[in-house]
Formats: sequence, structure tokens, C-alpha cells
Amino acid sequence: MQISLVQHIRKFVDLSDSEVPVLNQYLKSHKLKKKALLLEEGKICRDLYFVERGCLRMFFINKKSVEQITQFALDGWWISDYFSFMDNTPSDYYIQAIEKSEIVSIDKHQLDELLAELPQLERYFRLIMQKTLAASQLKTKYLNEMSKEEFYLHFSSSFPEFMQRVPQYMIASYLGLTPEYLSELRKKNL
Amino acid sequence: MQISLVQHIRKFVDLSDSEVPVLNQYLKSHKLKKKALLLEEGKICRDLYFVERGCLRMFFINKKSVEQITQFALDGWWISDYFSFMDNTPSDYYIQAIEKSEIVSIDKHQLDELLAELPQLERYFRLIMQKTLAASQLKTKYLNEMSKEEFYLHFSSSFPEFMQRVPQYMIASYLGLTPEYLSELRKKNL
Repeated sequence: MQISLVQHIRKFVDLSDSEVPVLNQYLKSHKLKKKALLLEEGKICRDLYFVERGCLRMFFINKKSVEQITQFALDGWWISDYFSFMDNTPSDYYIQAIEKSEIVSIDKHQLDELLAELPQLERYFRLIMQKTLAASQLKTKYLNEMSKEEFYLHFSSSFPEFMQRVPQYMIASYLGLTPEYLSELRKKNL
Repeated sequence: MQISLVQHIRKFVDLSDSEVPVLNQYLKSHKLKKKALLLEEGKICRDLYFVERGCLRMFFINKKSVEQITQFALDGWWISDYFSFMDNTPSDYYIQAIEKSEIVSIDKHQLDELLAELPQLERYFRLIMQKTLAASQLKTKYLNEMSKEEFYLHFSSSFPEFMQRVPQYMIASYLGLTPEYLSELRKKNL
């Protein structure tokens, strides 16, 4: 479901109509084709990305030369390599559109200027970071606690839309399963 | 190394001397004995905790009734179950002092009041959340990419002070190793 950044911000803090153009002057809009890359290994992650419509994945290439997905971002989610973004260090990650997507991005310098002009957005970004952190803590717990089958069942019942949109081999990579094992699980639980 | 919350805040944003008493009126200070619990499974995590001196661990009890550590917090770190804190849902976690510790806490209501009085702290908390998120992304990557031995070697060379202060069986739990395997690794790499 498409959601503009303005709508999203207004779920958390006030943003008047006259402030919208101020916000927009700091943002870049991108229409991405499927498979377009926003970030590549070895590059510095200079932006935070917000998905208005579509889906991104974040992955790295492990020592066996296999793509390992660590995060997805659907409509209404922010994604970034926060370590690279904060410290200007080369990223180990790729961020890629897995379907045609519309996103907005903001770099660190523009973010600082935006926050100086619209200080209520400090609160917005604090709450977003807190939410992302909560999601990350929850995933850590699930990964530690559940069997792979339980994790898959929990995941597919919690995010049915996601299961429809994302290719099966990517879900397998995210959940730490082989595609073959995921395929067996799906058949078993149809 | 002891660090007061005031010192920590001043690393990120301005806080004048006259604002310090304003800050302090929203905080609670706690002197914890070793093994004191700040949070227990089934309780709502109502506070964010900042360690001024000491060390906390966050863990849950898995289905085999074994404690599984997901995070530590040394001097200068915030820790909380952010999901429980945000949504007022019962926590699955415990937060416990693993040595004599001095901490400060703030609950959600007090945090909101504090941020209304000292709005520059929105920025402080945003940056703290971002930092914690970056650390969590990095751990995810290490866990996915490294062998257990590599993870241990990386961890012990990156955080030598930590290795001195935290009991070996807790480090094993955090790294996902059996205490026996960790003991072998230590002997091998002395």
C-alpha cells in the first residue's frame, strides 16, 4: 500500500502544509526499476532510504559467494546501513529494489539541515529508529528461540502480503533456510 | 570507566549547567548489587536504562530452560526492551546487573516530559538509537558471516576490557557457543 513520507511523518509528529515544501527541498525522489541498486559493497552508504511504494532488500555476499539477506523494507519503512552512514566507512552491504519501487532518500548533510529547519522531525526520526531497533531485537529473539520451521510459520502468518510479494529464494535467505527446505515447508503447511 | 549521563549527553548535544537539574528531576538513580534484576519476563519494560558504571546483561530463557544472552551494556550504554517499552506489552526478557552497577532510568511518561522541556535531547536520543541500531546491524552481519571461532577472536580483540569483566559462560551464551567450546578456543588462542 503506497504511503508518502508526508503521510508517514504525520503519523508521529505535526507537519503543517506550509512545511511540506521545506521538507521536499531536502529529499530526492527515485523511481527504481526492479533490481536497481542503491548501495553496493565498498561504497559509503550516504543516504537513509524511505520506501513509498515497492520493496527493497539489504544483503551482503558471504564467503561462499552467496547472497545473505539481512533486511527487507516494504512501503512505509526506512532502510540504511547505519554504521556506514554514521561513520562514512565503506559498506559491506548491497541495497536493491526487488520490484519496481518509488523511494525518497536524504543524505547526512541534508538531514542535518532539514532537522535544523523542522526540529520536530528529530522526534520523528527518534521514534523511527526506536521502532527499527525494536524490530531488530524481536528478530534476534525469534532467531534464537524458534526452530527454522517455527520461524517460517510465524513469519508467514505475520506477514502474508510480504510472502506474496517476495520471491521464495529471498525469503529462504532471510530466514537462514535453504530454498529446498523452504519449499518442503511450504508444501507441508499448505 | 565511569561516565555520567550528563557527560554522555554533552558528547552529542549542548546541555547547559542550568539544564542539568531539569534533566535530573526526570531521572531515577539506582545502585544495583550484582545479580539485581531490572526487568523480568512477563513484566512490562517501562524504562530506558543508562549504565553510568557497571555492566548489565539482557537475556531470555529459551525452550530448553537455558539463559540466552542477546545484549550487554557497559558504562555509557543504554539498554531496554524497546518493543515492550513502546507498546506496553509484557517482555520476554530479563535485564540484570552482572556486577555492582550504578545506573539511571527514565520511564516513557517522564521521557516525554523531559523532551518537551529540553527538546535538544530528541536529537541525543535519535543519535543513541541510531548508534544502537548500527551495532545491531553489525552483529547480525558478523553472526551470519563469521565462523564461531572467528566471531570469538574478533570479539575478544575488539573488546578486551569486556572479556576481562564478563564471566566466560556469559560470553559463550552471547556468542552462541557452548562454554566447553569457548574454553577450548581460549586455550588454543592464548
